[in-house]
Order: sequence, then C-alpha cells, then structure tokens
Amino acid sequence: MRSKIISIGDELLIGQIVNTNAAYLGEKLFSIGIPVERTVVISDEESVLLSELDDSVNNYDVTIITGGLGPTHDDITKPVIVKYFKDELITDETVLAHVMKIFSDRKIKMPEVNKGQALVPKNSEVIHNESGTAPGIWIENNGKIIIALPGVPYEMKSMIEGIILLKLKLFFKNKFKNVIKQKTLLTTGLGESTLNERLGDIKEIIEESKLAFLPSAEGVRLRINVTAENEEDADKKINLIEFRIRKKAGEFVFGTNGERMEEVTGNILRERKKTLSLAESCTGGELSARIVSIAGCSDYYMGGVCSYSNREKLKILGVKAETIENYGAVSEKTALEMAEGVRELMGTDFSLSTTGVAGPSGGSEEKPVGLVWIGFSSAEKTFAMKFNFGERRDIIIRRAVMRALEILRRELLSIEQNYY
Amino acid sequence: MRSKIISIGDELLIGQIVNTNAAYLGEKLFSIGIPVERTVVISDEESVLLSELDDSVNNYDVTIITGGLGPTHDDITKPVIVKYFKDELITDETVLAHVMKIFSDRKIKMPEVNKGQALVPKNSEVIHNESGTAPGIWIENNGKIIIALPGVPYEMKSMIEGIILLKLKLFFKNKFKNVIKQKTLLTTGLGESTLNERLGDIKEIIEESKLAFLPSAEGVRLRINVTAENEEDADKKINLIEFRIRKKAGEFVFGTNGERMEEVTGNILRERKKTLSLAESCTGGELSARIVSIAGCSDYYMGGVCSYSNREKLKILGVKAETIENYGAVSEKTALEMAEGVRELMGTDFSLSTTGVAGPSGGSEEKPVGLVWIGFSSAEKTFAMKFNFGERRDIIIRRAVMRALEILRRELLSIEQNYY
Repeated sequence: MRSKIISIGDELLIGQIVNTNAAYLGEKLFSIGIPVERTVVISDEESVLLSELDDSVNNYDVTIITGGLGPTHDDITKPVIVKYFKDELITDETVLAHVMKIFSDRKIKMPEVNKGQALVPKNSEVIHNESGTAPGIWIENNGKIIIALPGVPYEMKSMIEGIILLKLKLFFKNKFKNVIKQKTLLTTGLGESTLNERLGDIKEIIEESKLAFLPSAEGVRLRINVTAENEEDADKKINLIEFRIRKKAGEFVFGTNGERMEEVTGNILRERKKTLSLAESCTGGELSARIVSIAGCSDYYMGGVCSYSNREKLKILGVKAETIENYGAVSEKTALEMAEGVRELMGTDFSLSTTGVAGPSGGSEEKPVGLVWIGFSSAEKTFAMKFNFGERRDIIIRRAVMRALEILRRELLSIEQNYY
Repeated sequence: MRSKIISIGDELLIGQIVNTNAAYLGEKLFSIGIPVERTVVISDEESVLLSELDDSVNNYDVTIITGGLGPTHDDITKPVIVKYFKDELITDETVLAHVMKIFSDRKIKMPEVNKGQALVPKNSEVIHNESGTAPGIWIENNGKIIIALPGVPYEMKSMIEGIILLKLKLFFKNKFKNVIKQKTLLTTGLGESTLNERLGDIKEIIEESKLAFLPSAEGVRLRINVTAENEEDADKKINLIEFRIRKKAGEFVFGTNGERMEEVTGNILRERKKTLSLAESCTGGELSARIVSIAGCSDYYMGGVCSYSNREKLKILGVKAETIENYGAVSEKTALEMAEGVRELMGTDFSLSTTGVAGPSGGSEEKPVGLVWIGFSSAEKTFAMKFNFGERRDIIIRRAVMRALEILRRELLSIEQNYY
C-alpha cells in the first residue's frame, strides 16, 4: 500500500505558502496504513499534471491531489483529469444547489463563473464540501484511487476526516494484512531532552514498536506506532507502552491524540460546574481566544479583561497603584492582584492572570524579554509563578498561554506545580 | 532558468515535519530569478534518488537536494551522487578538521561514524557548513548545477545566504536575460469570484504578465508576477498593473506583500496618535490577540474586555438589562452599547465590539450560527453592521476579527463600509 500527494500551486513553489497540507495528509494516510512515499509540488501546467497522473495510476494505490479546483482560469485539476481519463465534465445538480445556497445564505449574488464549481467528471464520485464551494472528486481506476480536493486547508481537512479516510479503509479492507495503530501522548512542562532522560531506556518501553518525539513551543508530543496482526493486539501493545510512559512521566501528560489543552481543562471545569475568568496582560487575549475556540465554553468561561495599559489594570482590575509603583507591572504582586481582581469582578471560582515582557523591546537586566508571571486564584489560594519563555514575541505568548492552562489543569487535578 | 528541489526524509512524508525548507528555498531561488518549478519529497531509497538525479540533469538548471547528508546508514545522498556521476568519495581534510573541532569544542569524544562527514565526491566543491558537521556539496555537470545541503534548517539557510545564492548568480550571469519580480496585493471584504468580476477582463489588466488569486478565510491575495529586461521595466510593469487593479477594487486592498491587517491599522492609529479598545463577545479575545501580536501595540491599544456571559456585558460594559431582554445579546443594540461602553470605560478614541453566534449550537432561525454584529464607536459616531460568516466556529471567529479590523481601517481612511 503506497500513496502519493500532488500539491498544485505556484504559491507553494515560490515559498509564499508552506505546504502544510502535504504534512497533514502524510500523517493521516500513515495513520490508516497507506504511507505516503512521494510528494510532488507542481505548477498549474497541463502537461505536468498529465504526466503525474500517469505516474500515479501506474505506481500508487492512492493519489491525493490538492489545489487547482477553484472557479478561475488557472484552476486546471478537473479539466486535466477528464482529459487524462478520456471523460467529460457534467454539472452535478446537488453541488450546484449547494454552491447557490452558500451565496444566497450570505446574501451575495453568485457570479456566473461559480457555476463551474458544479462541473464534475462523469465517471467520478462527488465528495461533499460542507465548508466551501469546490467539491472533492473521487475516481476509481483499476483498483487505484485518485482523489482531488480543494487546497484550502480547513475545507480539505473536513473532507478527509469526514469521509475520505473511511472510504479508503473500506475500499482497501482486503489489502491490509497488518493493523497499524498509533496514539500520541501530549506532554507539556518539560523539554525534549529532559523528557527523554526521564523515560530512560526507550527500547525497554517500546520493544519493537516506534516512538517519535515531536517537540514544539507548547510541549513534546510522543507518538507511539505499533504494528500487529489484529486490532486487539495493536491496542494491547499501545496500552502497555502508554502505561510505561505514564509511569515515568504521567504528570506531564495532559491529553492524547488531537486533544487540546483548552479542551482538557474546559472539560474538567464543566464536569465540576466551576467557572473561570482571566486577566491578561502580555498574552493579550490569546489565552481567552484559546478557551473560546472550544465550542460550549460558555458553560464555564465567564470572560476576561485584557489590560494592556497600566490604567486598565488599576481601574478595572483593582490592582493597587502602589503595587505598580513599587514592584512594576511585571511582578509577582501585580500578577496576584490581577488574578484576585478579575475573580472578584467576574465572580468566578478560578482565575488566571498573565503579565510579562513579550518584547522585542521593553526588556531590562532585571526584567528581560521573556519574563512572564502567571497568577492563579481560587477561594482557597492565590499564587503566581515566574517563567522565562525565550526571546521571540510569538513564542513567548504561546508558551505563556500553554503554561497558564497547565497551571489550571494541575490545580484542578491536585498535581504539584513542577516544571523543567 | 528553472530549478527543482528534492527533499529527502520519511519524517516529511509522514507529516512529522512540515517542509519549511522547500518554501524557504522556493522564495530564495525565485528572488534571484531561478524559479522552482518542481519540488519532490522522497524517502531514502537509492533507486528513487537516482531517477530524480537523472530528471534533474536533463531538465533543470539548478537542483537543490536537502537531507540525507548525515553520518548514518540511512543517509544516502552522497553515495547515490557518486554512483550517478560515476565518481568516488574522498576525505576532505579541511572538513575533517572542522568536524573534529566541533566535537572537541563541545568536549565530546567524536564517534567514529562522524569521520564519514568529511567524505565528499571527488569532482565536487565543498560548501563550508559553519553551523554543523555536514558539509554542502556543489557539482557542475554540463552547465547544470546540483547542490546537496543538510536538512537542518538553520545550517541549510546559512549556507544558502552565505554563499550559494552568490555562486548561482555568478555562475548563471550570462544566462539571466530577464528580471522576475512579484508583488502581492492583499484584499478583504469581497469573495474571489466577486473580485474577479469586479476586475473584469484580467488580460487587459495584466497583458502578458501573471496574476494569481489566492483566497483564504480572511480575504483574497492577488499576486502579480512580471518578467522584464531590467529592474526598472519590471517595476514599471508592476506599478501599472497595481494601478489598474486599485482603480477597480482599490478600497478592498488593505496592504501589500507580507503586511498584516493588524499592522496596517496599528500603524495608522500610531501615526494619528489615536487609541483603541475592544469589547469582544463571539471573537472571545482573538481580536485582542491579533492586535497584541504586533510589537509596539501598546502605543495605541489600551485593552479589551471579553464578555462571554451576559452578566459581564451588563456589569463591566454597562450594556442595559432591557437591551439584552428586549433584543438579545446578539443584536445591533447590544453591539452598539458594548462599543460605547468599552470606549467610555477605557477612555479611548475608538472602539470595536463583536457579538454573534459562533456555534456550533445556540443558533435559531432568526439568529443562525454565523450571524455576527460588529460595532464601532468614536466621539463622532457609533454604528453596528450585521454579517453572516458561515458555519464553522473557527472560521466565523477569524472572519469576524478580520472584518472588525477592516471596519476600523475604513473608518480611519474614510472609505465607505461596503462588503460583498
């Protein structure tokens, strides 16, 4: 079982856009046992795509093409597909109705050119695009599958996760001899090498399976890959490896697979019927935005104040003037008073606060760029912790947001606040 | 002049790493007039790399290979290169000394395997790697250039910027007949097809140049590509095309190239010494986070309130109880009172507010998911506008944030508030 990805677009070739679609597809196809063995990025030239299609039907079980499905003149995927397969484009009435509905819902007159979105190869199956106007195309050719999808990441992803992975598993179910499974443990609060050291001899943990360390600004993901003769054995192997990892570094594992920290903490708050409020300075609303990105957060999130000037800290949050005068806006005392102030203002069970130097300017020897105080407050206790999150503004903000949520998670689960 | 990139590595194919190297190389090669026309990502298999080398020497002026240069068994680039070119590997004493120095500087005993780093093809030129142990390889073959570089981004980049771009320019100086230039116009507030329609006959605007429509949830980028005999002519062509586009859709162009909307609006606020505050409901802090992502925003951004429950709207922002009772939290009147309330609370010149149904639940026939009211307030006027931003929570939030900033931009520049 081998697959290939064809990404179409000059914007990828000249580096205007990084090819995140290919990485996403690579991961998803690998997870169902159809590893990508080749990715090509090409421009929108007919002859090039024709020869790639030829290579695909000769050499790969699955080919996924992204991009070139739009309604304008430089969108070549569908015309080239019908040329290669000696097929023709016909209007799919369901797609046409969907496209027209999207425009009428937005109260926009549909430009004539958009009717082209509903043209699909006669010998293909349409993959519904619930988030956009360009449908996906699924073609079977002598036991090989060719799939064309829009290049817009969220449209493509919802089609992959909504239907395509399932269809592929079904189509190839007799060809899969082994079961490949993977599970990712999400850690935060310690670096890659510290985590490595804590786990000790990796071979003892994973035996003949695979373990990848995937570090990012927010933590290290540990991806376990196992191969087994059946589902049950695969699950057993994964469970054993997970057990061994958690035994050594369990307190740093906040979730698994695609879970998000804000989802994990949100679920605990909802279960316990507790509420949260925020007072953000250096994170500037990002912490609030992350929490609000989870549907249903209004069950536990009451709101936040982003106090980007000292005046707001004093006026709205009730931070004392002498605190800022004596200790500065970036200080333990300010973080404490912000957390207490917002918890009182919004009448919540818990609150978090952030104040720091996100840079690039504004740092001093005593308070360098990257210094962040994170405060936590509940009816029982209020505390603040000091961190240094490096030099890059965006990374400082991301790490501060993640750490604030991890502090909340540990308080909720009574885990010690230790970070490495 | 055409170039090709070969990226080697399973970690790219299975999506463990996003191929940022290819995007970087694409941009750099494009900037010196050797656009990348093909990027391939392959695993470390000899036969595959051999056939890619064959394609390269036949079809491309420049090929850059990244990855597979390390000292372990799965690093195939150098062995395959000498096999293909019927060459042999010899030890380069300068490289060997450099590698040994790196280890002795770090006070680590050099593993024997690392001596292999100093092996280079006899008929090649070594590109010094000041940041790491794997040297780069430069091969000339019948007027074509093949370059092999390490896959570690910062090592690769310092070799590209330090020497390779210069060497390429020098090597091909007689072949460069034309200058290639590009400029991207960033638009928002109208869809791809509506923009297309508004521009009318594209050929009339661009003549023999190229124009790409690059849509995203936030707007459509228009990328202009021109080729000319010299810099001056290229600039003239770009200016003419930009002039023609702006004549037809100028009010939708908020910036160019890599500019960000929050930067554009921030710069105007700073220049005019005006201040901004925010009252966010459905965007949940994302608008604030976007503004704070720009360094120096404290010059104009005072802060925001994220009122995620009605209680906060009433208490902190001073939205009237009867407004929420009679019109609901998602209403024109609430958006107006939020904007006015926060402007007063924070004493700013301008304010923006958002209230909407971000979904996935909470929608009704009258107020469906995607409905967003955006409010604006200044000393002169307060208004709110109604939008429908589709069905996906994350997209609704992104589009609402972008539209709020665009409303601010238009007010600052006295452009009519028309969206399509």
